[in-house]
Amino acid sequence: MTATEEHSRGRPGTLAFPGDGRPLLSDLRRIWTAGDDDPLRRIAAYALLPAGKLLRPLLVLESAKSVGGSPDDLGELALAVEYLHVATLIHDDIIDEDDIRRGRPAVHAAFGTPDAIVTGDGLLLQAFAALTRVSPAGVTDTALRSAVAVLADAGIDLCRGQLREAELTGDLHCSTEQYLTMARLKTGVLFEASCRIGAILGGGPPAWVDALGTFGVHLGVAFQIRDDLLGFDDNAELVGKPNESDVANRRPTLPMLLAYQSAGADDRDLLERAFRGELSGVRAFPEVRRIVEETGARAAAEWHAADLIDRAKRALAPLPGNGAVLTAIADYARERGH
Amino acid sequence: MTATEEHSRGRPGTLAFPGDGRPLLSDLRRIWTAGDDDPLRRIAAYALLPAGKLLRPLLVLESAKSVGGSPDDLGELALAVEYLHVATLIHDDIIDEDDIRRGRPAVHAAFGTPDAIVTGDGLLLQAFAALTRVSPAGVTDTALRSAVAVLADAGIDLCRGQLREAELTGDLHCSTEQYLTMARLKTGVLFEASCRIGAILGGGPPAWVDALGTFGVHLGVAFQIRDDLLGFDDNAELVGKPNESDVANRRPTLPMLLAYQSAGADDRDLLERAFRGELSGVRAFPEVRRIVEETGARAAAEWHAADLIDRAKRALAPLPGNGAVLTAIADYARERGH
Repeated sequence: MTATEEHSRGRPGTLAFPGDGRPLLSDLRRIWTAGDDDPLRRIAAYALLPAGKLLRPLLVLESAKSVGGSPDDLGELALAVEYLHVATLIHDDIIDEDDIRRGRPAVHAAFGTPDAIVTGDGLLLQAFAALTRVSPAGVTDTALRSAVAVLADAGIDLCRGQLREAELTGDLHCSTEQYLTMARLKTGVLFEASCRIGAILGGGPPAWVDALGTFGVHLGVAFQIRDDLLGFDDNAELVGKPNESDVANRRPTLPMLLAYQSAGADDRDLLERAFRGELSGVRAFPEVRRIVEETGARAAAEWHAADLIDRAKRALAPLPGNGAVLTAIADYARERGH
Repeated sequence: MTATEEHSRGRPGTLAFPGDGRPLLSDLRRIWTAGDDDPLRRIAAYALLPAGKLLRPLLVLESAKSVGGSPDDLGELALAVEYLHVATLIHDDIIDEDDIRRGRPAVHAAFGTPDAIVTGDGLLLQAFAALTRVSPAGVTDTALRSAVAVLADAGIDLCRGQLREAELTGDLHCSTEQYLTMARLKTGVLFEASCRIGAILGGGPPAWVDALGTFGVHLGVAFQIRDDLLGFDDNAELVGKPNESDVANRRPTLPMLLAYQSAGADDRDLLERAFRGELSGVRAFPEVRRIVEETGARAAAEWHAADLIDRAKRALAPLPGNGAVLTAIADYARERGH
């Protein structure tokens, strides 16, 4: 069994990434499958396992390696970014009333909204506990303190992105720029933070930390766009949510916005009605999809994602070996999406 | 105007504590009243101002002073514990469906549940940003890292206490011990963490950090009991919530549990029916109150709180000057409650 197969095992349809995710997965399982009656740990374990793609902690590890640092036991610290990510997913699902996540009941659907709110909080806090609980050799307290600051600021930006998204909900007049700001806050900053944290914990100089941050933010926004596009694929089971979800939740995705900008009056009207929920879900989605195709919005969104991935890769130039594994991760993202 | 009056101004009925809360209040106002369009900051400012009693950050500052440390600019770091506290209040109010907090609409009542969830998350994260954003002279990165770990672990315990409370909801058979465990997790640990963080940032040796931790946890549980008792006072506007709230939410408070343990069969039946929501709110509360009085449960709960405050004060013995201001805070708590 290859690293990739092991990494994706137990979650059909989950794609894995270049780089070695096995240590992360085994750390995650070791930490969260201990027989434990504590309800907070039990619900958190449900949210964390089976694992997602663990891309964010993988970026921490690979960023540390790319600056020449590879402290032992970094995996447990790297998982901090996964805890924060999963915490926001739990709360997002409550807010969006998405009852399915990764093909099974979302935390609030399985355990009720009150426990889901508390478990999300617990995982946010767990992120900071994970960053400060173990002391990998060669990682200074100054580096750990910086990592905490980077993660906290990224989390705050993520919350800002959430509110921004809520404001833009149902707003087809929102500009591409507004969308990109929201995508940066909602997705880009945590990718950026993951790369920065890895570089900091790996002992990289500030210029490399910044280079990896630039890589991360572009990669993150590209991922958000590819996530938007997955909603227009036939294989929506890959993301474990119904592909009508974005439209039903009136989320302004890039393909929708670009389609609206290019569509004729009749199609604009259709898009608006779909977004206002005036078309039944059954009818709305095929219509939206047709318009996204016919206006070339899907191709344009794909171009945007590809361009961001190019920019991400170029940012790696100053690193030793040009960050070969990170480049491979970016290429993989371009080819396969999630 | 005395420090105490200034500290409590703008919130009728709010009592202030010994020690100087003015720098904290002015830091809080400076940080959160900047003209700012960011919705996350705007909603967070609504939750934070006018300020509560700021007791937790006051404990940070006074604990730092009690070990002989008094770094400049500690106020901004001390506010971290207030951010975490207020974050949990925002989420608690959603969970308990308490629409009133401190005499005005709770955050979710004013801004909607989705934004309240996100703002609570933002304030949790803000706690860790606050601990790592400024560098007070004399505070080492090692101390800051420890403070982050203490705060994260306390927050996790707080979440565990939340779930524990939910499990015990409506359960009058819950033992005094179960209640005390829940109160320790829900309230004691953050008081403990506040004192520990102050001692750590003030550069105190481990024995003093532990002593202050012991002080904090006892004080915190005493506070929780006094909070329970406030629900049975006439002046419930002090806590800014209807005094029927605990009964309506079927929260197992210490006076209720002790009353149930001592009551005769008829009164037990009444307590159970009140707790199951089978009596109207109008009738339930006076009945519960009568039984709490007649069984001596109110006096017993008061004794418990006073005993904890004595234990808290005794824990201060190893400190220079026996932690005079902290002793005064504990005495104040005994006399006045919240």
